[in-house]
Amino acid sequence: MRNIGIIAKRSDSQALVAMGQLAHWLHQRGLSVVVSPTSGEAAGIPESVAVRKKQDIMAQGLDLMVVIGGDGTFIGAARSTVRWRAPLLGVNMGRLGFLTETPHHAMFETLEQVLSGHYRVESRTMLKAFLKRHNGEVSSYAALNDVVAHKGHLARMMEFQVSIDGQHVFANRADGLILATPTGSTAYAMSAGGPIIHPKMDAIVLTPICPHTLSNRPIVVPGNVEISIKLPNDGADRLLTVDGQIGVQLADGDEIVARAGDYPLQVIHPPERNYYELLRRKLRWTEQAVAPDAEG
Amino acid sequence: MRNIGIIAKRSDSQALVAMGQLAHWLHQRGLSVVVSPTSGEAAGIPESVAVRKKQDIMAQGLDLMVVIGGDGTFIGAARSTVRWRAPLLGVNMGRLGFLTETPHHAMFETLEQVLSGHYRVESRTMLKAFLKRHNGEVSSYAALNDVVAHKGHLARMMEFQVSIDGQHVFANRADGLILATPTGSTAYAMSAGGPIIHPKMDAIVLTPICPHTLSNRPIVVPGNVEISIKLPNDGADRLLTVDGQIGVQLADGDEIVARAGDYPLQVIHPPERNYYELLRRKLRWTEQAVAPDAEG
Amino acid sequence: MRNIGIIAKRSDSQALVAMGQLAHWLHQRGLSVVVSPTSGEAAGIPESVAVRKKQDIMAQGLDLMVVIGGDGTFIGAARSTVRWRAPLLGVNMGRLGFLTETPHHAMFETLEQVLSGHYRVESRTMLKAFLKRHNGEVSSYAALNDVVAHKGHLARMMEFQVSIDGQHVFANRADGLILATPTGSTAYAMSAGGPIIHPKMDAIVLTPICPHTLSNRPIVVPGNVEISIKLPNDGADRLLTVDGQIGVQLADGDEIVARAGDYPLQVIHPPERNYYELLRRKLRWTEQAVAPDAEG
Amino acid sequence: MRNIGIIAKRSDSQALVAMGQLAHWLHQRGLSVVVSPTSGEAAGIPESVAVRKKQDIMAQGLDLMVVIGGDGTFIGAARSTVRWRAPLLGVNMGRLGFLTETPHHAMFETLEQVLSGHYRVESRTMLKAFLKRHNGEVSSYAALNDVVAHKGHLARMMEFQVSIDGQHVFANRADGLILATPTGSTAYAMSAGGPIIHPKMDAIVLTPICPHTLSNRPIVVPGNVEISIKLPNDGADRLLTVDGQIGVQLADGDEIVARAGDYPLQVIHPPERNYYELLRRKLRWTEQAVAPDAEG
Repeated sequence: MRNIGIIAKRSDSQALVAMGQLAHWLHQRGLSVVVSPTSGEAAGIPESVAVRKKQDIMAQGLDLMVVIGGDGTFIGAARSTVRWRAPLLGVNMGRLGFLTETPHHAMFETLEQVLSGHYRVESRTMLKAFLKRHNGEVSSYAALNDVVAHKGHLARMMEFQVSIDGQHVFANRADGLILATPTGSTAYAMSAGGPIIHPKMDAIVLTPICPHTLSNRPIVVPGNVEISIKLPNDGADRLLTVDGQIGVQLADGDEIVARAGDYPLQVIHPPERNYYELLRRKLRWTEQAVAPDAEG
Repeated sequence: MRNIGIIAKRSDSQALVAMGQLAHWLHQRGLSVVVSPTSGEAAGIPESVAVRKKQDIMAQGLDLMVVIGGDGTFIGAARSTVRWRAPLLGVNMGRLGFLTETPHHAMFETLEQVLSGHYRVESRTMLKAFLKRHNGEVSSYAALNDVVAHKGHLARMMEFQVSIDGQHVFANRADGLILATPTGSTAYAMSAGGPIIHPKMDAIVLTPICPHTLSNRPIVVPGNVEISIKLPNDGADRLLTVDGQIGVQLADGDEIVARAGDYPLQVIHPPERNYYELLRRKLRWTEQAVAPDAEG
Repeated sequence: MRNIGIIAKRSDSQALVAMGQLAHWLHQRGLSVVVSPTSGEAAGIPESVAVRKKQDIMAQGLDLMVVIGGDGTFIGAARSTVRWRAPLLGVNMGRLGFLTETPHHAMFETLEQVLSGHYRVESRTMLKAFLKRHNGEVSSYAALNDVVAHKGHLARMMEFQVSIDGQHVFANRADGLILATPTGSTAYAMSAGGPIIHPKMDAIVLTPICPHTLSNRPIVVPGNVEISIKLPNDGADRLLTVDGQIGVQLADGDEIVARAGDYPLQVIHPPERNYYELLRRKLRWTEQAVAPDAEG
Repeated sequence: MRNIGIIAKRSDSQALVAMGQLAHWLHQRGLSVVVSPTSGEAAGIPESVAVRKKQDIMAQGLDLMVVIGGDGTFIGAARSTVRWRAPLLGVNMGRLGFLTETPHHAMFETLEQVLSGHYRVESRTMLKAFLKRHNGEVSSYAALNDVVAHKGHLARMMEFQVSIDGQHVFANRADGLILATPTGSTAYAMSAGGPIIHPKMDAIVLTPICPHTLSNRPIVVPGNVEISIKLPNDGADRLLTVDGQIGVQLADGDEIVARAGDYPLQVIHPPERNYYELLRRKLRWTEQAVAPDAEG
């Protein structure tokens, strides 16, 4: 590993301080460091220590991207770097993240390990969504967690038709529909009643939000299928959100086409990392909660 | 019954025609008929046949209000007439409604029965919600189905604190929170996972929408409690919707206070009406759906 | 309050010790104390200190029954004493109970308060279930939590028909059907997906267990209705359980008829008791659990 | 295809008649036909028309196994034939099955097509479960739908510990735990709240039944992991059921180890077969069910 980028949560001054420290630490080890112009400025890192590159291209040619902040920062970094195939390492600033597992105080120790080859790489399926409009206009989005089509402000619901690989699956009225990766299965999709998908799976889960058809259930499909969501010409107010971070107004007749991205995200973990322990802590799976118990 | 009002779904020309026919039919029987100026005009009913009164006061002094249209029309009529305590009779224009049970073709026959005293009156709990703002400004709303606080357009979620009769119940992050009457329990609240509440109960059910705390569950409370939903000062975009028909922008620090309304709605049913049959038809509770079955 | 009974969890030696201490403490205050012969013996309480009466009649004429143990002991005590209308006070031996709210170490202090009139009485709806067999044989059961009809050992499911006040509600195939009181709504019924019913309500909630019809939902009905569950003549292995403590083999054509009991249970609480706090602790409603969060 | 076996539902006389007709039809085409001794006898098929082999070995060397009956017959046939890797074709006797898609009246037509090479083969993941007992005794089971560990007769719940590939996942108290294949995801697991898993996936879904920990959710894992369910030494009454057709008493300290089977089941479909259409019909995903609707 010779070329290392750093992304930090810009609104977190502690993250910016950590970014500065890490840039110097890496520079002293003779490694090439890359940061974005704005965060390099914000963190006060001299250009002699870290090369500046705009965020959307800064991951090009990197061997490692260190992300300092919370899961939200990591998710944003994933979207902008996945096409350059640089592996990501997440450092949290206090609260344990699902993706930013290395605590701030262990940052240098973990990097020492990683630079000496002690780490595991995990591939995470990402979503690629295309928004197709009648007039041929198309935009595309990468997502690490989810792509959600949902009703706008005052709409009572949205109608949509779902097909997979060209076959009609179902039509429904609902608050919306979530397409989530395994990573995103424990985020918004779970609050809507979706299952947990193991992060090693190459799968997408479709979870309706407040569906009017009560027998509608989350559906787990392989990552290599093509999912289409078609909107009717009913003039309703509807939105597309990507990872809960990007929002796009939808229009009559729009079609959202989604499938697993061409490249999975590479995430670097400390060797001792345990997914299930993270799950138990985050979901608070401990002893029993039902009461009053007939026993006792 | 001497004074009878008629409300019709304005966008439905068939409903307006039926309204005109009914007005003449009632007038010929020597009854006093009341309609709103706009719908009287739209239906072409002479003022000699039906007195004009604005919709918000037209129910005053009525012995019966006939609502011609779908459940949505009935719900709107309920909100505007409940304070005058006039009983409502719903006539649907084709699709069986939960509230508009009399089909169009049976309208005269049913009214014949009702006018001769063959009917049952059912009381339905309504909600009364008050929106309290820091500056003391207060507005109030009646609801037959539900009062919903929910996140706006691009917000990831809304935070809120719920207390009942002054006692803290829970704080949560969610897409929103639904307060539903028994009538509303089979509407939006059900799509969010809420239970069915028998319409004879005086109860309110609190159902979170996509709650982040997975152990959060719908709570059914007596109609005589006072429920408060407090919003934090986080600058988030949030809305209050009433019966899915009225939308109000919420502001930082707003408090929504809700309880059962002072008067329940009086709904008139044909004597043979069966709530459970309606439920079975609407929810399609028929034979088993799970498959492949181990039997067979 | 002059006549006070004590019931203790017999398998818990600490509860028996506490029972003995309490018997003497009450006796010294000149109060009449009643215990069952077996527990009086087990706790080594002299007959001069506490009168012996069999458990099923010991509550007759009592002003207060103190229950020392866990919620299971309290539930059993409720079933055997409700017909004598003696109010119950629960003392737990360590683990906070939903019903046994007074911790062991505060037992004397709480009783001091209660005897001097500082307490609140809460009425809790109980269930009364009748098992009717073809041949006319009938047995009856009281329940504080729930009455459950469920499939036996190796049966794949059970079929049943539910009617309320003589009207057919639904037929279903499922693992079983739970009829729960508000008290029982946070016990087994909740693990099967049922809502929380406020303990002040006079209501019964019907919650199917693993229903084959996916649109089937819990139904909350008033306490004064009569619920009937009819079993077909299919030779299946089925059981009735009462509060998870009594089990009865069901037979072809059996009918279970249930309604709220004639008298609610009287439960004595310390004045400062807070139902919602108990709920939050038991269900662990704390901060958010969904992850990775788009924020941060 | 030269060697063809036939299995029919023995309790269904029409299935036995169809079996006889098919045996002659195949024999007349010069194909070798195999049936089990009991069903050959029951269907009155001469040994000159169909060779007899015991059911557990009759699939050896077959190019095709035709199963006539319902899904239950198909599931049983799958368990007994999967190790011989013979593809299965299901014929239903009236009610459309998830697995027995060819209706009785189209049996010859479909076989004509299949024998002339017009068909699609779909691989379905099966489960292989091992029951390990303290004393070293081990038994093993194949399952097409599911392997379920659940509480017995009068037990209030069962406790268990789940680990995957040697890592502790969670401990819980529940009515039971379902391990289901994608095929079984729409059977019992769905009634317990599990998601639909597309049949092309190589996956297993763990769905708890009435879990006491309310935040517990179904987990979807890759087919190549090893799932272990360990039971404590608490003397509880517990059972293991396989496809709802085989039941085994569990003992203190038992461990159930499950993973995807070595060979998937080969299922033969008519070329025009549509999985999603089947799903829509079986789950009755049609128009909206929530009511009363705010619209209309």
